[in-house]
Amino acid sequence: MTREDADLSKELEIPAIVDVPEDLEDLALGDDYALNPEYVDLVIDAADRGDDDRLRELVGALRSEDVADLMGFLTSDYREQVIPQLDSETLGEVLSELDTNLREEVLEGVPSLTLARALEEMDSDDAVDLVEDLEDDKREQVLAALDKTDRDAIESALKYDDETAGRLMQREVLAAPSFWTVGQTIDHVRSAGDDLPELFFDIYVVDPAYKPTGAVPISRLLRAQRAQPLAEIMEPVTEIDVTMDQEEVAYIFDKYHLISAPVTDPGGRLVGQITVDDIVGVIQEESEEDILALAGVSDAGRDATIWGIARSRLPWLAVNTVTAAVAASVIGAFQAEIAKLVTLAILMPIVASLGGNAGAQALAVAVRALASRELNASNAARIVWRELGVGVINGLALAVIMSVAVFIFFRDPMLCLTIALALIFNLFIASMAGILVPLTLDRLGRDPAVSSSVFVTFLTDFMGFLSFLWLAALILL
Amino acid sequence: MTREDADLSKELEIPAIVDVPEDLEDLALGDDYALNPEYVDLVIDAADRGDDDRLRELVGALRSEDVADLMGFLTSDYREQVIPQLDSETLGEVLSELDTNLREEVLEGVPSLTLARALEEMDSDDAVDLVEDLEDDKREQVLAALDKTDRDAIESALKYDDETAGRLMQREVLAAPSFWTVGQTIDHVRSAGDDLPELFFDIYVVDPAYKPTGAVPISRLLRAQRAQPLAEIMEPVTEIDVTMDQEEVAYIFDKYHLISAPVTDPGGRLVGQITVDDIVGVIQEESEEDILALAGVSDAGRDATIWGIARSRLPWLAVNTVTAAVAASVIGAFQAEIAKLVTLAILMPIVASLGGNAGAQALAVAVRALASRELNASNAARIVWRELGVGVINGLALAVIMSVAVFIFFRDPMLCLTIALALIFNLFIASMAGILVPLTLDRLGRDPAVSSSVFVTFLTDFMGFLSFLWLAALILL
Repeated sequence: MTREDADLSKELEIPAIVDVPEDLEDLALGDDYALNPEYVDLVIDAADRGDDDRLRELVGALRSEDVADLMGFLTSDYREQVIPQLDSETLGEVLSELDTNLREEVLEGVPSLTLARALEEMDSDDAVDLVEDLEDDKREQVLAALDKTDRDAIESALKYDDETAGRLMQREVLAAPSFWTVGQTIDHVRSAGDDLPELFFDIYVVDPAYKPTGAVPISRLLRAQRAQPLAEIMEPVTEIDVTMDQEEVAYIFDKYHLISAPVTDPGGRLVGQITVDDIVGVIQEESEEDILALAGVSDAGRDATIWGIARSRLPWLAVNTVTAAVAASVIGAFQAEIAKLVTLAILMPIVASLGGNAGAQALAVAVRALASRELNASNAARIVWRELGVGVINGLALAVIMSVAVFIFFRDPMLCLTIALALIFNLFIASMAGILVPLTLDRLGRDPAVSSSVFVTFLTDFMGFLSFLWLAALILL
Repeated sequence: MTREDADLSKELEIPAIVDVPEDLEDLALGDDYALNPEYVDLVIDAADRGDDDRLRELVGALRSEDVADLMGFLTSDYREQVIPQLDSETLGEVLSELDTNLREEVLEGVPSLTLARALEEMDSDDAVDLVEDLEDDKREQVLAALDKTDRDAIESALKYDDETAGRLMQREVLAAPSFWTVGQTIDHVRSAGDDLPELFFDIYVVDPAYKPTGAVPISRLLRAQRAQPLAEIMEPVTEIDVTMDQEEVAYIFDKYHLISAPVTDPGGRLVGQITVDDIVGVIQEESEEDILALAGVSDAGRDATIWGIARSRLPWLAVNTVTAAVAASVIGAFQAEIAKLVTLAILMPIVASLGGNAGAQALAVAVRALASRELNASNAARIVWRELGVGVINGLALAVIMSVAVFIFFRDPMLCLTIALALIFNLFIASMAGILVPLTLDRLGRDPAVSSSVFVTFLTDFMGFLSFLWLAALILL
């Protein structure tokens, strides 16, 4: 069978309709804007046949963001076949969209010169993100292949710490003195061309020392008369210090509904801007970190190996081995009581488990409230009291439920009393731990999401076993 | 002591420096952009004295978002004193920023006419949000007090379901035919004035049927020559269907880095736009919902009563009572074995607890991956296999750790073997449950964050007790 025959027979299997680019677009994305598995199969199929033309047609029908998604669904062999089919602008955009792990792998395979051309097409913030992920050798090669302006921009951005405003910002920014009129500003924009950012939303008004004194949203600029000076239409700006943590930046953007904000150096001079599209990513990232941290996972990324993932989860499990063993040692102290009344062994995990759940509830609420700064020094005392009240109320409720259940099964009123008192006590401990542990960690400047769960679970297990077995020894034996 | 004396003596207690508005601004916010507790105290102090002038000065130094924060730190009596000091524009903005529970309470206290004036100052999406929270009686009064255009806008938006694009969108939008030139468009913007949205970022190009065919970012409009027709500089748009769920809308904005997007009715006609500042709020909301749902909490809001919060957490605890009881019934089946060897009662909770933690880890990763659509039909099989591999690896690791610990304490090799095998088995169950339960719920169209934890915890508890006690009966007794 010749190559042509193979292509022909393959094409016969694919419905004719998908060969027209517009139809490809329709086929690519499902109703939920995720890539269709069928489309991924078409790509794999073309790659298997080594049909580069077809590959180029298939990825050409996708937006860069969807090509990045596609990469996540392909194995590395297929990825290496797809990447050479992208032009440098698309390549840059796709690389920006990839998850860190995947990106590092893909970057290794792209020649330095190709990468340099892609970087030159990008805004400075996205370019820095990429360069950062390169191995040292390759980074030098790529930087050397860039033109001087781009190289300088990237090198100066790399001087700022990771996850700070300096890394998020783009250096391209539109600044104007306050005495300029609307007309002058528009004319300047028309003539400035390439030095301006790809997209911008505000014009920053600066004083002679290049310090921002106000901002004019460009929709307001469009609406104003040409003769009006910027000073008359500008509004106050919220400046972002170049060293500010990205979580802080995201908080400010969210709170004040900012679309863009000027970034200033320690001397107060304008050095760049951050736009809201970068912030949406940060917000997603930070809240995902909280979800994972509460469950004791450090994110190993979608494309980490099994070993990498296992290693990222083991530390928390190992810590839990120790805390679970300490909690279990409480049981050891009551061996004689359990030997006398084995029923205790049946009921004690229920007390611990319900405490653990109530603690996790209080903890999730506290971590969320701290992250959104709804919980702080002004209202901490009130919220702590409220949590304790909730603990007591739900402790009473569960005490009633469990007493009834225990009576039905064991017909022993004193056993009911024991589990009821233990539940009330342990739910009180759970509320207290669920709010005070994250508050304390926060006060100490630690991330309350990261290590709270282990403390809270330990306390509810330990106190659950202790209170139930101790009360049992007192009341029943 | 006269009223004047009281004011004077009070003023002497407050450092003179805070009486100048600029200094008030500096005092109001801490370095972390949260309200200073000292500032809240100043407000409470002024309210206690009934000093309305001072209150007006204090809240006047704050941005609307910070006034909203302030409300959260005040009790309802103080809030009722502060609110009449706000002008209608600020009142509208503050009301928009408040948490739902607090907002409902505050809205009850504001007269209908005052509310109507505040609504008229707002963009239609924010106005609808407010009206929605009003009691039926009051809603009618307020709507009747609005002018017809505003009333019609709000009533038609209320026809869309909650949490859909129709509710998020604002009706004010800038549309232009493709044959208009840049110059014509700018001139139109200058003359249109009040009918335009407060801020806008894209001009939508529409065909004669008012269907969007493209968009021109206004920064590109500014940069283009006056004679250029819009058709030459427009780019493709991503349309949002008016019935689309807000989580879907947020996904699209995040994925394609949109700043604004046109909303279309079922006939494809432009009916409004959604801007990214509204989406930032949705993203925060959705990820907070996931954090809380994983812990079994339905958000009762910052200002819910103790009873309200307790009630919002009780259902999950009650379900957990049942599942914990069922898991404990396994222990009941092995009472004879436990009576013979009480050590079993000490070690069995460790097996259950480690399984629970490993399950929670796998679950958090799966829920996050489903939310960001990194996990879907194309790669589900691969991710499931990977999770199972991680479960086996960490099961083996924990088996080694616990065997050593058990040998040190109990010097019984067969007991070591029992707990080692039980751990490997239960961590395998944990991985399987942690990935398959959320995947199945998602496939069934349910929110995987909401009820996964209860299933996963039940399975790891049940199988933890069962595997350990059954192996013990087999190996040890």
